[in-house]
This record gives sequence, C-alpha cells and structure tokens, in this order.
Amino acid sequence: MRQTFDESTDPSFGPQHVPLIRKAMSDQGLDALLIPHEDEHQNEYLPAANDRLGWATGFTGSAGAAVIFQDKAAIFVDGRYTLQVRDQVDQQTFEIRDLVDGGVPAYLESAARRGQAIGYDPRLHSPDALAHLKIAAAKAGAELRPVTPNPLDQAWGQARPPQPVAPVVAHPLQYAGEESASKRHRVGESLAARGAQAAVLTAPSTIAWLFNVRGGDVIRSPLPLGQAILNADGSARLFLDPQKVTPDLPAWLGNQVRLETPADLPQALAELKGKTVLVDPAQSSAWYFEALSGAGAEVLRGEDPCALPRACKNEVEIQGTRNAHARDGAALTRFLHWLATEGQTNPPDEITAVSKLEAFREATGALKDLSFDTIAGAASNGAIVHYRPTQRLNKRAETGSLLLVDSGAQYLDGTTDVTRTVAIGEPSAEMAERFTLVLKGHLALARVRFPAGTTGSSLDALARMALWAHGLDYDHGTGHGVGSYLGVHEGPQRIAKAPNAVALRPGMILSNEPGYYKEGAYGIRIENLQVVTPPAEIPGGERPMLGFETLTLAPIDRRLVVKALLSDEERAQLDAYHARVREVVGPQLEPAVRAWLDEVTAPL
Amino acid sequence: MRQTFDESTDPSFGPQHVPLIRKAMSDQGLDALLIPHEDEHQNEYLPAANDRLGWATGFTGSAGAAVIFQDKAAIFVDGRYTLQVRDQVDQQTFEIRDLVDGGVPAYLESAARRGQAIGYDPRLHSPDALAHLKIAAAKAGAELRPVTPNPLDQAWGQARPPQPVAPVVAHPLQYAGEESASKRHRVGESLAARGAQAAVLTAPSTIAWLFNVRGGDVIRSPLPLGQAILNADGSARLFLDPQKVTPDLPAWLGNQVRLETPADLPQALAELKGKTVLVDPAQSSAWYFEALSGAGAEVLRGEDPCALPRACKNEVEIQGTRNAHARDGAALTRFLHWLATEGQTNPPDEITAVSKLEAFREATGALKDLSFDTIAGAASNGAIVHYRPTQRLNKRAETGSLLLVDSGAQYLDGTTDVTRTVAIGEPSAEMAERFTLVLKGHLALARVRFPAGTTGSSLDALARMALWAHGLDYDHGTGHGVGSYLGVHEGPQRIAKAPNAVALRPGMILSNEPGYYKEGAYGIRIENLQVVTPPAEIPGGERPMLGFETLTLAPIDRRLVVKALLSDEERAQLDAYHARVREVVGPQLEPAVRAWLDEVTAPL
Repeated sequence: MRQTFDESTDPSFGPQHVPLIRKAMSDQGLDALLIPHEDEHQNEYLPAANDRLGWATGFTGSAGAAVIFQDKAAIFVDGRYTLQVRDQVDQQTFEIRDLVDGGVPAYLESAARRGQAIGYDPRLHSPDALAHLKIAAAKAGAELRPVTPNPLDQAWGQARPPQPVAPVVAHPLQYAGEESASKRHRVGESLAARGAQAAVLTAPSTIAWLFNVRGGDVIRSPLPLGQAILNADGSARLFLDPQKVTPDLPAWLGNQVRLETPADLPQALAELKGKTVLVDPAQSSAWYFEALSGAGAEVLRGEDPCALPRACKNEVEIQGTRNAHARDGAALTRFLHWLATEGQTNPPDEITAVSKLEAFREATGALKDLSFDTIAGAASNGAIVHYRPTQRLNKRAETGSLLLVDSGAQYLDGTTDVTRTVAIGEPSAEMAERFTLVLKGHLALARVRFPAGTTGSSLDALARMALWAHGLDYDHGTGHGVGSYLGVHEGPQRIAKAPNAVALRPGMILSNEPGYYKEGAYGIRIENLQVVTPPAEIPGGERPMLGFETLTLAPIDRRLVVKALLSDEERAQLDAYHARVREVVGPQLEPAVRAWLDEVTAPL
Repeated sequence: MRQTFDESTDPSFGPQHVPLIRKAMSDQGLDALLIPHEDEHQNEYLPAANDRLGWATGFTGSAGAAVIFQDKAAIFVDGRYTLQVRDQVDQQTFEIRDLVDGGVPAYLESAARRGQAIGYDPRLHSPDALAHLKIAAAKAGAELRPVTPNPLDQAWGQARPPQPVAPVVAHPLQYAGEESASKRHRVGESLAARGAQAAVLTAPSTIAWLFNVRGGDVIRSPLPLGQAILNADGSARLFLDPQKVTPDLPAWLGNQVRLETPADLPQALAELKGKTVLVDPAQSSAWYFEALSGAGAEVLRGEDPCALPRACKNEVEIQGTRNAHARDGAALTRFLHWLATEGQTNPPDEITAVSKLEAFREATGALKDLSFDTIAGAASNGAIVHYRPTQRLNKRAETGSLLLVDSGAQYLDGTTDVTRTVAIGEPSAEMAERFTLVLKGHLALARVRFPAGTTGSSLDALARMALWAHGLDYDHGTGHGVGSYLGVHEGPQRIAKAPNAVALRPGMILSNEPGYYKEGAYGIRIENLQVVTPPAEIPGGERPMLGFETLTLAPIDRRLVVKALLSDEERAQLDAYHARVREVVGPQLEPAVRAWLDEVTAPL
C-alpha cells in the first residue's frame, strides 16, 4: 500500500516541542518566532523534513501559521480547518486564531511588545507576506530579525527526518513532447522581450518541466526540489543535491545546462549583479529577493515564466493524458463495479475502499504513485471537504447513503484526478435531486464553448447556477489546473468565484468538480478532468470557439440521476459521455465488469 | 422635439481651429498641448462648453484624446470609433492613432523632442493618467507644463458656448426616500471608519444624490455640476455657481451644509491642511490631488464614498422606478403598436421612428428628458453599436429586416433604458434564430439566483453561452448600473467580461442587454432593466439567494422567437414576463392598442 492511515502528528506535539523551540529561541535572544506552513520551496505539499508547522503544533492542514512567544503562542488556520485544528492541536499551548481575518500581522501588532525581537526564517516567507509582517511588528515597536539557523530546526535536531534525495531522472520526449532546449529558448525569448537577462526559478514543477526531468522529493508528485537560473539565451544553471544526480542526467541535460550544487547558489545569484532578473514573488521566498538586491541585480517581479507554457500542454502530452485516463478509467471502473456488487451487500469501510481502489490502480502495472491521498468519505464524512480517512476516523459506508471517492494517479504519461459519488443501497429522493443539480452544473461546464480571452472566473457560475436556483452552493472552487506527470494542482488557470485574469488557452487541463455537502449527512462531488480545445469553427457561426474535451472516463451513478430534472440536451450529453466510456474503457475489462459497464452506461 | 439630428461638428473644425490653438500655444511658449476628452468633472457626457476635443478636431465620440504640436497633430480613439473618426476628422490636420495600444504616452515618447514644453490643463487629467504622461514626456527629454488658462479655451474665445447654469432644485423625499442629513451621516461614518476626516466629492451624480438635489447642466441627465467637501461628522460645504442657486435651495440644504461658490473651493481645500482626505482618482482630476497635497493634507485615494450607497436604491426609489417603468412601458408599447401596424405597411425612417417614440413619451406629461439620444438602427445601421441617427445617415426601415430601438427617459421617479428589436415585414430564418439566441441569454440573466458576494463579472457568461454555442458573441458589456432620476450609466457595479470586484447588492439596478450584430446587415439587442432583490429563502434550499426583479415592461417581438429553440423553462419565463406586461401596461392603454398588446403577449 502506498497510502497510509496513521496520523503523523498528535495533540501532544505542542506541549512536547514548544518548550524545546522556546529554549532554542532564547539561546538566540529571540522573544518570538514565526512559523509559516510554507517551506523553502513554497510548495503545497511538504516533505516530512520541512513540515515545521506540523512538528511544532500537530496541525497538518495545507495552509496555516503559528507564532510562538516565550509566554504565549497562537496558531492560525482558515475556515476549512476550524474543526481539524481543534482535533489536532493542544489548546493549552496554542490559542486558535483566524488566518484570514487579520491573520498573523494583526496578532503581532497586538501581542508583540516594544523592543521585542521576533525571529523569522527568510527562506520561508514570500516577500509580500514578510512586508506585511514587518509593518505589523514596527507598529508594536518590535523588530523582525532574520534567523540562521532556524531555532525550530535546532530544536527538532536529530528527530528531524532527513531531507529527501530521490533520484532525478530523464522525462523522455515520448512523454514530454518538446526538447528542453526548445523550452529554454522559448522561455528565454520571453525573458528578453520583457527586458530581463535571466530568471531565478525555484518552483519544483518548473524545474521538472523546463529540464524534462522528474524526481520524487515530494510525496504524491514526481517533483525534484532544486533551483535554476535561466538566461535569456536559453542556457541555464541547475542546482541539485549531488546525491540526487543520476549517472545519465548530465548528458540528458546537455552542455547548455551547468549542473551545480545548492551550495553554489548564493555565489551564482551574486554573479547576476547589474542584470535584470525575473523572480516570482509567489514562488520564491524573500531570501532570493534580498540576495539579488544585495548583489546589485535589478529584480523584476513577475509570474514564473514557465507557468503559462507548462500549463498549455502540447499534443504529445495531451495524447499521453488521454492514454493515462483510459488506463485509469478501467481501474476506477473495476472499483465501481466492486462497489456496485460486493459493496452493496456488504458495504466497505473507507480504508477498505481506498485500499481496493489502490490495488486496481497498482494492477495496471503503470502506477508511479497516487496523485494525492484518496479521499473516501462515507455518509457524513463525505460532507467534510478536506477529509482523509485515518484509522481513528475510518467509517463504514451506510446503506441508504452515499460514498464519495476522490482519487487520482501519477503515470509517466499523465496525471489523473477524478471524483465519483456512489449510492450505497437506495438513496433518498433528496440525495438524488441534489446529485442531479450537481450533475447539471458539471455538464454545463463540460459542454460550454467560449471565445479566446475567456477566464475561468467567467465560467464558474455555469457549474453553480442549477444549485443556486435551488438555494444551494458549495464552498470550494470549481476547477484547478492539472500537470502532465506533475502536480495535481497547477496554475496559473483556475475556475472559481474569485477573479483570475488568466485566459483559458488550448491545452490547459482543468478539473470540473462541482459538489454539494450536507453537514452531518452526506457529500456529493462529480469530477472529471477536461482539456481546453483549440478555437474551432462552429457550423453556421462566425467566430471560432474554444471548448473542452473531457479526459476522465468512468461511469456516473445513474441511480442518483433524476431524469425529469435534466433537459433533453443534458440527457443527450450524459448518454454521449457514457457511450465514450463504454467504447474506450469497455474493451480493457473482464467480461463480467464489461457487462456491468454496458448496463450502467446505457442511455437514460 | 428634444432630440436633434444635426451634426454639431464637421471635418472643417480641425483645419479651422488648430491654427488658432497653435497661436495661443505659442503665446504661452508651448511646443505642444494635450487635449483629453474629459472635462473638469470627468463626466461621460459633456456640456457643449467643455467639449474641447470636439471643437478642436470634429470628433464627438465618448472617449478619446488629441495632441497638437506646432508642426503635427494626432487624435487617439479606441476600436469602437475607428470608422466614426475617419468620417468626422480631417486627416490632413490629424494623424489617427489608437487610444489603447500605447496611446498618448507612447506617442509623446516618440514625437516630443528634447527640451520641448508640452502644456496640459491639470483640471482635465486624472492623476494616474497624468503620471503616465509625465513619464513618457521625461523619456523624450520634454517637460509637461501646467497651463492657466488653457490655450484652447483662449483660442475658442467668444465662440465658446457659455457654461451651463441650469437651476439646482430640491429632489423631494417622496422620490429620494432618505433625507440628505441621513445620507451625509451614513457616508460620514464610513469616512471615519477609514480614518478620513473628510472627502472631496466632484462627481455630479454624487452631488445630486448626497444633497437630494437635481440640476440640468449636462444634457440627458439631471446633473448639477459642482463640488463638495463632506466631513466625517456629516456637515458639508457645497460649491455651486450662484446663478444656479434657486431661492428655496439654502433652506432645503439645511444648516449643516454651507453653500459657497466655486471661487471659494481653493481656499476650502487649503483649510484641509493636516487632515486625512479621501479623493477618488477616477472622479477627481490631478488638480485636486495637487491642491490638497500642496496644502499639507494627507490624501487617501479611494472610490467615491457615495458610489456604493447611491447604487443600492432604497424602497422608495425602487417603487419610484417601478412606477416610471410602468408609465414608460405604456409609451413604448404605443410606439411598438404603431410600428406593428403603420410601420409594417409603410416602414418609417429612423428619425420618424425616434420622433414618434419621443412624442409618446412626451404625452405621458411626466417626461423630464430623454435619458440618452434614442438609437434607432434600421437594417445595417442596427449593426453599428454606437450609431445615432442624423439627417445625413438617416435610413428607412427595410421590409424583411430589423429595426433596433434603444431608448430611455428621465422621470422624477426614475430613469429608464430599454431596447427592443422589431421585425419589419417577414424576418429571415437566420434573424429569428439569432434573436432567439440573444433572448435565451437575456432570460438566463433575468432568472438567475445567486448568493451574496457574487459579482457581475461572474454572471456575464450566462447572457452569452447560447450565442457562444453557435459561434457568435457581441463586443460590448452585458449590463451597466442605472441611476434613480440620475445618470443612465452608473457605477460601481457592472455585468461584463472584464473583472469587476463589486458584489451585486440588493437595490442595485442593472441593464440586461445581450445582442448580436451582423455587419452590413442588421443588429439585435434585447434590453430590460432589473433590480437586485434581497437574499430570500428558496423552498427546500439552505442558503438565501439574491436575484433580479425585471423593471422594464414592454412586449418582446414573438415573431422573432423560434419556439423550438427555447426550453420549457424559457418558454414559461417569457410567457410569465408577457403576462406581467399585459397586467401592468394593458390598463393604461387605448382599446385598440390594448387589444394588440393582448395578442402579442399571448403565451407562445
């Protein structure tokens, strides 16, 4: 099994570890220490060695922060995590506060006292976040002081897991579809066009994409931790821990890429003196900005120049992801068949369901990893959007309720992410009605055509309007970008209520995942991945329109569809989707499963 | 007749007036002069006395700029006006350039020479626009120099129309719904909450709303030109030309409002020394920012603090606008009846149609003004979005084509704005199909329910998705805010593709006006005004949802509706709308017109 169900922290972490941290703080003369969730790579998922917030507090959510004073401490989480934080964190040690409403700066302003020294690790904070913190500390008459080493790391000491050193290997052209040299020249030209001579690249997904390599430093994604400097002429310096360098790597990188160690990075940044250097303040910590400014480089703030080219997949990547989804769809269909047979008579618990699904994916022989820990939410657990089953929370699926399963896989040719919600026994009329409203939104977003320049924010309402009309909604975004054997969450595009200025472009892969959650009862989500198709003429029309091709192929539970709530167009769309599932997935299946698939994908 | 069809400028304006301007420039030692479209009040519509760009160039579009050097000159317009500018402006005198792509700053950078003095009138430029111009001039080694008086005004001399001095009168509580004192205290508290002691208010619609007064300085809207300083305690100083002050005005304003003259304004701004003063850089020119900074005030940039409260109409205003629409709907229905009878056998020309419609509105006895010059676009003229009929362009409606009529009225109780597209004779199948697609978008945006926090940008796609699916679209926004016996274009809300962070709030009035335009052939637009309704429970739902109540009441031409293209829900929605039109408008009509209305609003 790849997925585990043990909890990596517990509420004793705070009372155990905070005294050690306070001791290390006091050795450095600090009155307080800032502990952001982010690590040196500003990643969404952290290697265990960098989960400083988890070690200090017990909290394992994907966003948050803590501040430890000698005489008090607070942890900051957003609305998604208000229940989880109470479960994971000792409230004698940490006061729980809101990350969004005022957040750390407001707390510093009121909690810090004149003359206090508040330590921060400049490698962990974005420059914009740090600027706010500095203003807040100044208002309190306190001072933010950069620390080296981080007192938390000193306190953690021998107990800290080692830094990951997964081998970095070639990602061959049959999957990447474009030579690294071509990518480097393309991005280099975009730098030159903006008046920059170089860019400092720190996002692991950018390192992976630009050099056509993959690693394994971050669980559930093939990301290599490292940094690079790309010059406008397409040459580059790549900084990787020598332990990660596989023998064939230097030849694969070619002679335009100089392979160096992280220890060489400060000197390399210093050599950018006098040059205009692009750095992404959302991806690179304040340390890079200070190092470059200190060296006399002109820092140009801007989005990672690889983000948009990476998001627009080429034909080879798109065909790869189609292949990955065909394979993954067969594994998922086997799982859904199992749920529809054994699972109906003897409903499984969540961990059993997760294990079964993983086994089906493992059996493809192509699974490199899960793309994230599978969410299986039985009945009321399905209503907790950020739920992950653990031994402690594990729940058996209930007859007459729903099981929500959100899962995905990493294959060499593509990354998948799919959610299906399945009725266990006979669903209630309310469950079916709300499932159908979610489905209507999902279908609207799958079939929309739109002109060039349209953003994901403009399309978000299509996935919600049927729910809105019934006084319902869901409190998460509708779609996130997805990488090609890379991160399952990838920017810069997004389909959400919040404004996002990035126009959807051909080749971008996005999820389409509206949902509905009834607290204490059940959760519904229907998620397919879809790729933006190039502008195409429409018969009788005047303007070419982009659209979506659905990539994910697995049956949607028709027992939950209220046919009368669907328009003719929606029924035809669902039937056509199911026909594609039968056609592509069917031939891969064993006779019994195939017969079942034919039955459950028959026209409504 | 209120509307006129003569052209107020012609292409000889440039050759006639530019030499006079150059002479006045040279008397002030200037090498060039900047002429923005905006006037001292940063208004959309200008009094004739302030249409400097029109007088200098002949161009009468609603946005643009010109730069006159001694040896060359250029005019800048956006994509909407590329045809019109060629028609109106002498190209021997003015080079035509793009307002958006580079615009005036790029031109200055390349056209100005080292050491040149470029004059600008600081009352006409927003501070942000001016900052860009200053950078551009500096790059060329030239200098921007503020001018007093404006050499263009000197050149215009005696020929310049006088400044408008329409009387400023009370807007009684039966229409305003809230005392000025209450508004001033409410807005004053919002200033205090932001740490400001005062706000400088320069938008005429803000002057009108805050003090419950109306004027007539700007054609087609009851706007009084003036300025005010509002203090956080609700007291205010109001600066109006004494010629505009009607005898009852001081008593109406009360003793918390000091009535002064524009000549007192500079001293009043100087008295704000040491205070934090809110000013809206989109509404107030650089002159205000310079005067306040020069006086030692702390300038806080932010949106006009009256914009949002003004946009959210109170119950009295909403009931007033319902009454205005019922009255206006009867006038429009009489016009549509005329078009459907006489107009079918003997199709009118555009000017005749406009005159007829104005006569029906005039006959209500309540018409204060049109809310804008009526657009009547016959056949191919309907496809020109910014078309206004003139004697020169006037065209007869064609049998077998469409007539688009976009019009509105100012009544004491409300402002209307409505577009109907009518078939003259038998429309083609294509016309009907495309009309139906526009109608589907209009209906979707009329029936949508949405949660608090939703912006107009999020809803825009609903009005386009049916057109998009057929490879069609329209190149304008879908909805603009509308005032209450005020401007027919009002912020801050908007329904458009472009991001807009303003959430729709109860009481906001917006247009819903999708369209389709076939160049050289015909134009289609369907426009109703609708008001945002308060959050309301939906039976069986969980979250209260906002929505829209349609205000405009006039039949939609069913001869253009392809029934088969509408869903059951859409058909029921159109039928229900038509039933409301019959119910509210019918009783106001003469028997023959009422019988016709019953017929054309019968269920599909």
